Amino acid sequence: MIKHLRSAADLDAATATLILDTAAEMAALSGREVKKLPALRGRTVVNLFYEDSTRTRISFEAAAKRLSADVINFSAKGSSVSKGESLKDTALTLQAMGADAVVIRHSASGAPHRLANWVEGSVVNAGDGTHEHPTQALLDAYTMRSRLGRLDGLKVAIVGDVLHSRVARSNVLLLTTLGAQVTVVGPPTLIPLEVGAALSDKTQVSYDLDAVLPESDVVMMLRVQTERMQDSYFPSAREYSRRYGLDVPRLKRLPEHAIVMHPGPMNRGMEIAPEVADSPRSTIVEQVANGVSVRMAVLYLLLGGK
Amino acid sequence: MIKHLRSAADLDAATATLILDTAAEMAALSGREVKKLPALRGRTVVNLFYEDSTRTRISFEAAAKRLSADVINFSAKGSSVSKGESLKDTALTLQAMGADAVVIRHSASGAPHRLANWVEGSVVNAGDGTHEHPTQALLDAYTMRSRLGRLDGLKVAIVGDVLHSRVARSNVLLLTTLGAQVTVVGPPTLIPLEVGAALSDKTQVSYDLDAVLPESDVVMMLRVQTERMQDSYFPSAREYSRRYGLDVPRLKRLPEHAIVMHPGPMNRGMEIAPEVADSPRSTIVEQVANGVSVRMAVLYLLLGGK
Amino acid sequence: MIKHLRSAADLDAATATLILDTAAEMAALSGREVKKLPALRGRTVVNLFYEDSTRTRISFEAAAKRLSADVINFSAKGSSVSKGESLKDTALTLQAMGADAVVIRHSASGAPHRLANWVEGSVVNAGDGTHEHPTQALLDAYTMRSRLGRLDGLKVAIVGDVLHSRVARSNVLLLTTLGAQVTVVGPPTLIPLEVGAALSDKTQVSYDLDAVLPESDVVMMLRVQTERMQDSYFPSAREYSRRYGLDVPRLKRLPEHAIVMHPGPMNRGMEIAPEVADSPRSTIVEQVANGVSVRMAVLYLLLGGK
Repeated sequence: MIKHLRSAADLDAATATLILDTAAEMAALSGREVKKLPALRGRTVVNLFYEDSTRTRISFEAAAKRLSADVINFSAKGSSVSKGESLKDTALTLQAMGADAVVIRHSASGAPHRLANWVEGSVVNAGDGTHEHPTQALLDAYTMRSRLGRLDGLKVAIVGDVLHSRVARSNVLLLTTLGAQVTVVGPPTLIPLEVGAALSDKTQVSYDLDAVLPESDVVMMLRVQTERMQDSYFPSAREYSRRYGLDVPRLKRLPEHAIVMHPGPMNRGMEIAPEVADSPRSTIVEQVANGVSVRMAVLYLLLGGK
Repeated sequence: MIKHLRSAADLDAATATLILDTAAEMAALSGREVKKLPALRGRTVVNLFYEDSTRTRISFEAAAKRLSADVINFSAKGSSVSKGESLKDTALTLQAMGADAVVIRHSASGAPHRLANWVEGSVVNAGDGTHEHPTQALLDAYTMRSRLGRLDGLKVAIVGDVLHSRVARSNVLLLTTLGAQVTVVGPPTLIPLEVGAALSDKTQVSYDLDAVLPESDVVMMLRVQTERMQDSYFPSAREYSRRYGLDVPRLKRLPEHAIVMHPGPMNRGMEIAPEVADSPRSTIVEQVANGVSVRMAVLYLLLGGK
Repeated sequence: MIKHLRSAADLDAATATLILDTAAEMAALSGREVKKLPALRGRTVVNLFYEDSTRTRISFEAAAKRLSADVINFSAKGSSVSKGESLKDTALTLQAMGADAVVIRHSASGAPHRLANWVEGSVVNAGDGTHEHPTQALLDAYTMRSRLGRLDGLKVAIVGDVLHSRVARSNVLLLTTLGAQVTVVGPPTLIPLEVGAALSDKTQVSYDLDAVLPESDVVMMLRVQTERMQDSYFPSAREYSRRYGLDVPRLKRLPEHAIVMHPGPMNRGMEIAPEVADSPRSTIVEQVANGVSVRMAVLYLLLGGK
C-alpha cells in the first residue's frame, strides 16, 4: 500500500481499485447497526487546514471518528502560522505531537509533497491550490462505479473552468488510470492549448458542450469560482451560463442512463439549474455520502488499520 | 416521542414533563462516578452554528459527549456558506454525512423548520433569530421545578425586551403549557400591544415591575442586547436600569421563597445588580448546569437512545 | 499533590520532579502499542483560550485525549465574552458544565489565579500575558534532563527579550527550584536593573552573549515578538540579530555537549539561524514532543487519575 495520498498520480489502477472496494465495505459496515469501527482506535488524525473548507474538513473528521481515531482540528488561521511559522516548523510540531496522519488543505500547489518530507505519518492532500484534490476524484469514481457499474470505457465530460480546477486535474488523472475516457469541456480561455496538451493523452478537449452531451455517460459540472469571474479571461456570467450551464434542455440531450455530478457547493442558476441539481439523475447528495466512505477507506489503508 | 424540537410549541405537557423527568435522571447519573453514559455511542451530533454562541454550543457538546455521541462542530462562518451555499445544500450535505441530529443556531427565524424538511435526522433549535430557543425554556422550567417543587400555578415574571427575546417567547409557550401563570414586564415600546395580544391568552402584560414583584414566585431577567440600545424605541441605559433593572431594593420586594433567573450572559449593573446576581436566591449558575442535563435528555429522547 | 498549576512557583522541587518522572512514564507508555491510556475517561478538560495559540492548544488537546478525557475547546473570540461577559461569569459557566480542568490562555497576567477562585476543578496556566507559562518551563526542564541527565548544577543561558517573556519567567523560577544556575542574557533595555533584581537571587544577568556561551550547558533562545520591535526600547532587527542571534559561529563557542533550545515558533534568521535550528544539538522538535508528555503528566496528577 502507498504511504501518502498527495496526488491522484500516486495511485495505480490496482491501488485505486482497492480503495474503491474498501470504501464499499466501509459503506456497508457503516449502516445503522455498526456506526463505529475500532480500526483506528488510539490513532491521531490532524486536519491541517490553511484554507477554510468546512465541508471537506468535516467529511474527513466524520470518516476518522467512525474509525475511532482521535481528531485534532488545526486551523492555520490565527495560529502561530500567522506569526510567521513556516510549513516546515508546523510539520515538525505535528510530527512531534505524534500525528499518524495529516490531512492538509493549502492554497499553495505542492504543499502536501513538501509536508511529506517532514513528517513520519501519512499525508493526505485535501486540496492544494489549483493543483489536486485526490479524495474528491476517488469519491467521484466511486459514485460513477456504484451508479453505472463500471469505470472502464466510461465516457466522462468534465465541464467548466478546467484551468483552475484541482477537481478536474485529479479526476483526469484517476479516471484515465481506471480506463475511463475523459473529455474536458469549457471556454477556450479556461482550457488553453497547453493545458489540453498537458492533460493525459487519453483526454479529449472540446469547447462545445452540446456536442459532447449525447456521447456522455457522466457529465461533471465544475463549480464557478465567482471571485475569478472578474478576470479578463472569464466570460460574463450570462454568457458562461448560456454556453456551459447545465439546464433542463441540455439534461434532455444526455443519454437516458447518464448521470450528473457536481463537487459542491453549487452555484444554482449559474453552472447548474436548480431543477437539474435536484433531479433523480443528479448524484450530488450521494457524492457527499460517498466522500465519507472513501475517506474512511483512504485513512484505513494508509494507516494500516486492522 | 417527537422527532424534532423546533419550537416550544412542539411540546405538549406530557412530552415536556417527560423531558424534565429524564433530565433529572441524567443529572443523577452524571455524578462523579458515572460521567459518561453509553446511550448514544456511534451516533453523530452536528452543531451547525450560523451565529457565534460558544456557551450554547459547548453545552450541547458536553451533553452529547456525556452520552458518548460523536460531535462535529460546523461553524458556518468562513465555510462554504460564505461561498453562497444555501441552507438546503448544507442540510443535504449533513444528511449525506450521516448526522443523527443537527443542532442549529441561525439568525433567521424559522431556519430549524426549513432544515427539518431536508434532513432525516432530528433537528434541535438552539436559537433562531428573535423567534425561539426551546432548550433554554426547558432548562428554565427544570430549574423552577427543582427549586420550587412545581410548575403548575407558579407565578413567573419575565422582564425586559420581550419584543426581541427568543428566550421570552419559548418560555411563555412552555410555561403556560405546563400550567404556570406568566406576566411579561417591560417598557411599552418593548412589549407593543400586538405582542401582548399575540402571546398566549394565559399571559399577562405589565409595564410596572415594582407592582409585579410581590406577587411573583420567579422573576426572570432578560438580557439587554446592548446593540439594540441605539434604537429609538429603546429607553436610555440609565432609564432602563432605573425602571426595569433588578437591584437590591427590588430583590427585597419579592416573596421570601422567590427565585431570580437570567439566561446569561449578564450585563451586571444594567438589567441585574451584581449583588443580586450573586445572591443565594439567584439560580443563574444552576441554570447553566441544568442546561447540560436538559440537553442530554432532549438528545437522548429524540434519538431514541437506550 | 497541588490542585492548580498557575505558576512555576506553585511547584516545589519534589512536586516538579514528580511531574518530570511521570512525564517520562507517559512518554514510555505512549509508544505505538499503547497510544491511549484510560486514566481520565469520563473527565472533561476545557481549553479556554482568550488568545490564539494553536500549538499550545493542540498540545493540551492531544495530551488530554491520550488520557481518554473529553476535550471541549472554548475560543473566547467571538463568544459571549465579546458580548461583555466577565471572566467570572465564564468561570461559573464552565464550573456548572462540570469541567474537571480548565486550561487557560489569557492576555492578562494573573487571570489563572483569579479563575482558580471561581471553579472547583483544576486550573492550568497555558500562558498569561507577560507573566508565566509553567508547562513550557516543565517541558524545557524535561528536555534538559533527558538530554543532559540532570538539572542540578546545570548552567542555562536564557537569551532575548527577558522583560516581556513568560517563558523566561517560568523557566527562571522552575530551574532555580531544581538547582540549575540560570543566566539571563539580552540588551540592557530588555533586562532592566529592576527585572534583574526581581529575579531569583540565584540568577545572573549578562548583556554579552559571547562571554556566556562557553560556560553554558544549555542556551535557550527566546522568540522575538516582532510586533514589539517597533518600540523604542527595542534594538533594530539587524542590531538585535548581530548581537543576540544564535548563528553558526556562536554555536561553535558552546561546549561540545551543550544543547540549543527554543520554545517556538522560531523567527529563522532573526534570533536563530536556520542551520542552528536544524542542527543535531537543537532540541526544538523534542521540546514539542516532550510538551505532550509533560502536559499528560500535569493533567494526570492534578486530576488524580488512576
